[in-house]
Amino acid sequence: MERLLEIHGYRRRAAGPPQAPLIEIVFHELESVWAMELIRGVENVAKRNDATVALTESGTRQAPGPEWIEGVLRRRPLGVLLVFSTVPEDVKRQLRSRAIPFVIVDPAGDPDPDVPSVGSANWAGGVAATRHLTEQGHERVAIITGPEDLMCSLARLDGYRSAMAMAGHEPDPRLVRFGDFHVQGGFEHAMDLLRRPDRPTAIFAGSDLQALGVLEAARVLGLSVPGDLSVVGYDDVPPARWSSPPLTTVQQPLQRMAEEAARMLLRPTDPGKTALRIELATHLVIRQSTAPPALG
Amino acid sequence: MERLLEIHGYRRRAAGPPQAPLIEIVFHELESVWAMELIRGVENVAKRNDATVALTESGTRQAPGPEWIEGVLRRRPLGVLLVFSTVPEDVKRQLRSRAIPFVIVDPAGDPDPDVPSVGSANWAGGVAATRHLTEQGHERVAIITGPEDLMCSLARLDGYRSAMAMAGHEPDPRLVRFGDFHVQGGFEHAMDLLRRPDRPTAIFAGSDLQALGVLEAARVLGLSVPGDLSVVGYDDVPPARWSSPPLTTVQQPLQRMAEEAARMLLRPTDPGKTALRIELATHLVIRQSTAPPALG
Repeated sequence: MERLLEIHGYRRRAAGPPQAPLIEIVFHELESVWAMELIRGVENVAKRNDATVALTESGTRQAPGPEWIEGVLRRRPLGVLLVFSTVPEDVKRQLRSRAIPFVIVDPAGDPDPDVPSVGSANWAGGVAATRHLTEQGHERVAIITGPEDLMCSLARLDGYRSAMAMAGHEPDPRLVRFGDFHVQGGFEHAMDLLRRPDRPTAIFAGSDLQALGVLEAARVLGLSVPGDLSVVGYDDVPPARWSSPPLTTVQQPLQRMAEEAARMLLRPTDPGKTALRIELATHLVIRQSTAPPALG
Repeated sequence: MERLLEIHGYRRRAAGPPQAPLIEIVFHELESVWAMELIRGVENVAKRNDATVALTESGTRQAPGPEWIEGVLRRRPLGVLLVFSTVPEDVKRQLRSRAIPFVIVDPAGDPDPDVPSVGSANWAGGVAATRHLTEQGHERVAIITGPEDLMCSLARLDGYRSAMAMAGHEPDPRLVRFGDFHVQGGFEHAMDLLRRPDRPTAIFAGSDLQALGVLEAARVLGLSVPGDLSVVGYDDVPPARWSSPPLTTVQQPLQRMAEEAARMLLRPTDPGKTALRIELATHLVIRQSTAPPALG
């Protein structure tokens, strides 16, 4: 009898009610502070839907690793949030064949039209940060944007360029740097920028962590912030509020982005339709790291 | 036939292999920076054991909420890490009845002898932080420890008192404060302490976040760190390295603690034996926020 059931695809039910549903979030790197903001957003939606958040660190900035694919097909979550990556064709195919919906959050590249995504207005954020500085009278404004292979870095840089042009300033190419989004990288670029004889009076750091590195470089070189140097961050993760002075920064609504993405997973769309792509607004939060330039 | 099978506890097997195993971690508050350190520790062990981390925010500092219990019994994880809490009797009973092992990480109170736990050497950490200050010549050392209802706060405070006594200093009770482990709380206590006519020359903040609040209070009051004021943090979470100046702090091995706890879950012990309780060592990390007091 057992054998017969086995053949017909039955198995004894485990004691207790069936498995509770999962919403899965995949990062290529857990250490970034904004990972926690995204997790909190997913947790908010999961809680309201009686689901649990499953968390994986896998792969590279470009795509999750093959060991993850195998696992997720077994776990059969309600859906998957992929952070900061792209989705290779075979992964898409496998997820779709098991009817596991997925959304990309903060896409690394330009997502394919058939992949739903939630991002934020990076170009507008770059404009807002830079315009805040030019409006205060800064002309020599440097930028340390993110890595060159990420769309968000390029969009923020273009926003900076447009805002400089709108203010009538020719951006000095020596003041344009690609960073790595980490504190140490921000510190090193800032040390180099601030030791120049024609040093910038303001630095737009493409992430709050890079901005913290800029603050430390200023301290080491004996420059006061915002007296001698204005600094603008990007993201508005908690360390931006905790720094000394607290950072003026561009807020990316990371929790909201994760919430929207999780909601998209729970209300799957008609497969015939074009995938939904949402871009949430960014806005400038003015704190104490910016001021008009000292009269020179 | 279907009905008959149902009655006998069979159900049709879902397509694909069985559910992948989960290791569950429960926080009462996800915003703390050290939550991420603990998650990374669990993820390290989960990855090596082909398991996935499930994450829940539930309940209070004292115990996870009732909605969590229901969910975890359905999810049937390999085991559960409870962070910073105690385990009520009925929860213990329910988890045990389903053979779901659990471990408390960084217990809030003194865990019952039948509950396994992983903590760290809080008293020794308090001694190390305070002794570092007294050895540099500080006599007026203030402490902002954590909340009064947590064992770890009391242990750090006792370590402070012992180190002060060992150095021959009578601790001034007006320099002893209970904080909330958050930046704003540290800021407010520090503003109050540093405005006193007989202000302390050093502050031992019971968490790195409180220490960041102390740095901001010093900046607002025009005091330089470490010139006018030495500051020691606690935890060594990433913001301690990122602050300006970088913080001297007591390192709690948070990732290691979570790894040990996850490993305990995966190798369940003989139920007859006393539960395992591990306390990992803490150690002082000297950075740039401490120096001998200015000659007054």
